[in-house]
Amino acid sequence: MAGTAERMAKNQKQVAISEFFEKNKHFLGFDSLTRSLITAVKEAVDNSLDACEEARILPEIRVQINKIDDKKNIIELKTEDNGPGIPKRSIEKVFGQLLFGSRFHAIRQSRGQQGIGITGVVMYSQLTTGRKTHVRSKIATETSAATVDIGLDTRKNKATKTNEGRELWERPDGTLKEHGLEITCRMKAKYQRGRQSVYQYLRMTSIVNPHADITFVDPDGEVHHWPRVTERLPRKVESIKPHPHGIHLGTLQRMCTESTDSRMTSFLYKNFSGVSSRAAKQLLEAAGVLEKAKPKSMKPDQIRALLEAFQGERLLNDKAVKLLNPPTNCLSPIEELLIKKGLSKTIDSRFVTTMTRSPTVSQGNPYQVEVGLIFGDGMAADKPVEVLRFANRVPLMYQQGGCLLTKAIESVDWRQYGMDQAGGRGVPKGPAAILVHLASTNVQFTSEAKEALAENGEVMDEVRKAMLEMGRGLRKHLEKKKKMVKVQEKFELVNDIIPAIAEKSAAILQRPVPDLAGSITRIMGAVIAESTTTWNKETKMVDIAIKLFNYTSRARAYTLLASWPESAGASMENNTTGGRKEATGVWAWKLETLDPGETYTITYALNGLEKGDWTETDVFYRGSQEVIGASKMDEKLLEEIRRQEAREQGEEEESGEEEVSLEDTEENDAPPEIADDQPKPSGQQTLMGFGSDA
Amino acid sequence: MAGTAERMAKNQKQVAISEFFEKNKHFLGFDSLTRSLITAVKEAVDNSLDACEEARILPEIRVQINKIDDKKNIIELKTEDNGPGIPKRSIEKVFGQLLFGSRFHAIRQSRGQQGIGITGVVMYSQLTTGRKTHVRSKIATETSAATVDIGLDTRKNKATKTNEGRELWERPDGTLKEHGLEITCRMKAKYQRGRQSVYQYLRMTSIVNPHADITFVDPDGEVHHWPRVTERLPRKVESIKPHPHGIHLGTLQRMCTESTDSRMTSFLYKNFSGVSSRAAKQLLEAAGVLEKAKPKSMKPDQIRALLEAFQGERLLNDKAVKLLNPPTNCLSPIEELLIKKGLSKTIDSRFVTTMTRSPTVSQGNPYQVEVGLIFGDGMAADKPVEVLRFANRVPLMYQQGGCLLTKAIESVDWRQYGMDQAGGRGVPKGPAAILVHLASTNVQFTSEAKEALAENGEVMDEVRKAMLEMGRGLRKHLEKKKKMVKVQEKFELVNDIIPAIAEKSAAILQRPVPDLAGSITRIMGAVIAESTTTWNKETKMVDIAIKLFNYTSRARAYTLLASWPESAGASMENNTTGGRKEATGVWAWKLETLDPGETYTITYALNGLEKGDWTETDVFYRGSQEVIGASKMDEKLLEEIRRQEAREQGEEEESGEEEVSLEDTEENDAPPEIADDQPKPSGQQTLMGFGSDA
Repeated sequence: MAGTAERMAKNQKQVAISEFFEKNKHFLGFDSLTRSLITAVKEAVDNSLDACEEARILPEIRVQINKIDDKKNIIELKTEDNGPGIPKRSIEKVFGQLLFGSRFHAIRQSRGQQGIGITGVVMYSQLTTGRKTHVRSKIATETSAATVDIGLDTRKNKATKTNEGRELWERPDGTLKEHGLEITCRMKAKYQRGRQSVYQYLRMTSIVNPHADITFVDPDGEVHHWPRVTERLPRKVESIKPHPHGIHLGTLQRMCTESTDSRMTSFLYKNFSGVSSRAAKQLLEAAGVLEKAKPKSMKPDQIRALLEAFQGERLLNDKAVKLLNPPTNCLSPIEELLIKKGLSKTIDSRFVTTMTRSPTVSQGNPYQVEVGLIFGDGMAADKPVEVLRFANRVPLMYQQGGCLLTKAIESVDWRQYGMDQAGGRGVPKGPAAILVHLASTNVQFTSEAKEALAENGEVMDEVRKAMLEMGRGLRKHLEKKKKMVKVQEKFELVNDIIPAIAEKSAAILQRPVPDLAGSITRIMGAVIAESTTTWNKETKMVDIAIKLFNYTSRARAYTLLASWPESAGASMENNTTGGRKEATGVWAWKLETLDPGETYTITYALNGLEKGDWTETDVFYRGSQEVIGASKMDEKLLEEIRRQEAREQGEEEESGEEEVSLEDTEENDAPPEIADDQPKPSGQQTLMGFGSDA
Repeated sequence: MAGTAERMAKNQKQVAISEFFEKNKHFLGFDSLTRSLITAVKEAVDNSLDACEEARILPEIRVQINKIDDKKNIIELKTEDNGPGIPKRSIEKVFGQLLFGSRFHAIRQSRGQQGIGITGVVMYSQLTTGRKTHVRSKIATETSAATVDIGLDTRKNKATKTNEGRELWERPDGTLKEHGLEITCRMKAKYQRGRQSVYQYLRMTSIVNPHADITFVDPDGEVHHWPRVTERLPRKVESIKPHPHGIHLGTLQRMCTESTDSRMTSFLYKNFSGVSSRAAKQLLEAAGVLEKAKPKSMKPDQIRALLEAFQGERLLNDKAVKLLNPPTNCLSPIEELLIKKGLSKTIDSRFVTTMTRSPTVSQGNPYQVEVGLIFGDGMAADKPVEVLRFANRVPLMYQQGGCLLTKAIESVDWRQYGMDQAGGRGVPKGPAAILVHLASTNVQFTSEAKEALAENGEVMDEVRKAMLEMGRGLRKHLEKKKKMVKVQEKFELVNDIIPAIAEKSAAILQRPVPDLAGSITRIMGAVIAESTTTWNKETKMVDIAIKLFNYTSRARAYTLLASWPESAGASMENNTTGGRKEATGVWAWKLETLDPGETYTITYALNGLEKGDWTETDVFYRGSQEVIGASKMDEKLLEEIRRQEAREQGEEEESGEEEVSLEDTEENDAPPEIADDQPKPSGQQTLMGFGSDA
């Protein structure tokens, strides 16, 4: 026994972070040969998108994969972007040093977070093929591009570099590249097609980054191109300061210790978001700390008291000190119309609905949940629905089962929304796809590979709420569809059989066939809208016809409205009925009075779209009598959308830090003059699929 | 644009590993308040078990949880062991420095691997409560224990320490503690009961560490005690050298560069397992490298050629150079009898079967899969089966869905083995629990929290194979049960109705009732064994009765055998029929010839068990005629078990590194004299549930 402890202690030593991740490369997503390649592409592309977004450049990204040795699974990956480039002296640290980066301490939405990703690619390449990674970087202020081969001394977490040089970077057309980055590496990896593939990753990336132009040259030399569908860069995200609600005691202690502020009031006001100078004074009073106290000299008990004041556990005049929510301009949601556009493009189907929840805060971190659902033909009805997961605009391809987003979907009883689900738990079955996007300043993944989100009760609740709301939309759609089918069956029956009977009876009785319009109307007793949305091969446009039948015994007056993909760049052609724009993507036609038995048809075409882009038109109505086949316009929602548009217009000019109190947005934005007994929408919605079915 | 790249580069900086894990504490398992507590307990207990195992001490572990502030969720955790202790100067590094440890570079099975765990606990405690962790450590060579409070400077990944001191460590009974470690920390956490709880974690730990004595004092002061059930420490695991099959090019390059060997032959022989000096020469010849080449001076191309020789891609005389498999004494499986004991103890049920696969190698890392299945009453029939996952004797409590072990279970079509499973995929439903244990020198988890295993095709295959084999055992059991039920129904019918008919007929005919024994025997035409295993409240023993009925028309001679929990410490009492031991846990009775219509009953009792420990006795027979209700003894398997026992006996004395060629073990260990047309077992099995049903 004697000496065992010493002997054991002798074997202990410090391990470098690079040794750690070399041994545990699967933490970084390098576990199988196919996944390793996707991980490498992902790290390079995420960095390019982040850099372009920060530099406000519309990204052009090119990914090329070559098979070097098919038998030994050696692959060359080359990625190129038009980003700002990396200054020569920073290259070795960015590529050859783990945990080196700019985003670790910044509180804002970004794809990269840790400064691990691309160095992991360099490390994996070196480990599996013994080769350094070739980097070419051109920044705008220099004439030539810097080139260098980067490796990694894993014992020290330091870059090793060879072949440093400079060269002019010519584009294929002979012009010089202004700025950009190119990475070439060789690794043991396997290229494969299918649901988990580089192709699929890039396709998904293009959906949630519609401002990016992405080209992919696969190992067979086939070129896949996803052009950008909008010239608008994602909203610029600003870094924010930490919010008192999300601070741990240990962090606050450290902030105090490291502070050079002379007074606690300025320390609080300057280092936290949501703390006005008045709130700073109130917090200190609640905590029993003097305003002029020096942060550096704060005692542990004082810090604990201050934290309790932060968390509303220490009161001032029996009330918790009120803090503003953190600003949400650190977030950049995908936005619904783009989600819808993306979803419809991915899967040609019949019903798409999306839901963007208002931004909210978990432990001081602002975050926002967006969901989309597509339902209809062309998808397998007897298989689990496809789940498309995204975090900060990055597609998550692996570990679906272990992801919070999946768990939120599984926790919903989809049976009540008309979907098949064994036992009311688990991923539902049916011809549908569900998209979930979490935008957050601090996405908590289960591991460095960033493929699945870790447990978090608050985020889970938000995603669930969005799902439930979306589910209600789906149920309405299915009910509407069912009703429409019934009415149509009845209509066909009435229209086919009654005239036939009349004709036969007339023939037998040798009398003239009576006029049946009145009878049919009496039997149907409804106003019916029928819309068709079809791709016209010849004109390369989408033809739309909306027919309104008045099968009631009274004259009826309506305004019809329809959704159309205006923000996706479509234009409206041959619209003979005229009408006017009600909001972006919503057109309205005020129709003349329709007499009993009368029919009116609106026709128009949509130009600038591709086949499959737009397959169903949502029709809404304003009027007292229900229209079967259309939804009653939800005026409040329409107002909300208009207001949102106006806000976004405004935001593009303005860009200062803006403290948005979330409660205000939710509670007070509704126009008070419109009475409405509908449940108040808790987030922002588009019109599609969300009319108030009577 | 100009200057953007520079501006962006300026924000980049190096992040300390401790800052990284402080921000990403959920990677370490600190994601929710309940899980954080389990993680903390787990890290402390795993360390204690590892230290005791290495120091060859039978562990005594005590875990105590106190609620300090229920409203604010502040909990104090105190763990104490009787391990070797940690020398004073090492304490600060072990507890206050991430990635400091002894097991990172060692290739052998251990619970801890990275040197992160316990420092993570110190860090989480400091972050959430601002408090240091109190450590008391006593090593055998010193009189007093060292005490110190340890914190963590996360900016530097360095310990901070206060209150260093020395004290005599008295046990409650006043005696001095010889050696051990005590950790006391305060953290934000929540104690809860249920399936994911500290209680459950410790209970599972005690199952797979039957040599440990574990005491848990819960926040209500209730004391839970799991005494050790064996005095035998797990097999001592030896560190091995890396095997050429698992080496990456980058690693081989570094090994060469760092080598001080003067010749490649000695470099290969000394630094790799599985490489004899002859194989070393052959490898070099295949690679075209001189034997006297200096490792330090090897060129990249030579290293690549050598790696290809390692992997059988460079041939010598048209053949790959043959390498021995790595030794498997670096592994310490739980062993089946203990798994069975554990499973039976956990869930009171009727059918338990286990399966230990032979050790095998993935990418140079030896590993071994063990599985167990329990099936029967007392468990919910309409719910998914309970999955109990373990890696290197550590229970895995979270992320079940994302774990390779779960995926292996889900990939089996359990319907063919008589279980309910929607679509033949997913976790099956039924009154069952499945246990899987992976023992490996390099368990690849999905994250630092070590709760789920990452994808690995080879390990997946091994687990699947074990499942399939076990499934066949289950199917046999269910078929046997069905058959037995049928025979019994028939028997009852025959025994009830025929005498009744005979009696009635005799009465009507006024004749005497005929002797029916012969008729019944002719109708049944079978030998039947019936066994009962019941807990005797008064004697506190398990009473067992085995009845053998000869319902055939010929005299029959049998040897009956029965399983009993000998290795769990039971003793056999009141065994009136005598008999003899055939192997550990297998008793045999040679019975006298049984005439047609005759019955013989064996009775005995088992002492030293608790209620629920032993609920079913497997009965086997030797003899030509099938016995319904018993299994034909699988002599080969019995021989295998005896051999295994003998080997283990031998191993306890011996302890040098031993190169076991796995093929040899599998192919040549079977005794050639016994003809057998059964499928050869590919792993080691126990008898229970695996008789060769005719």
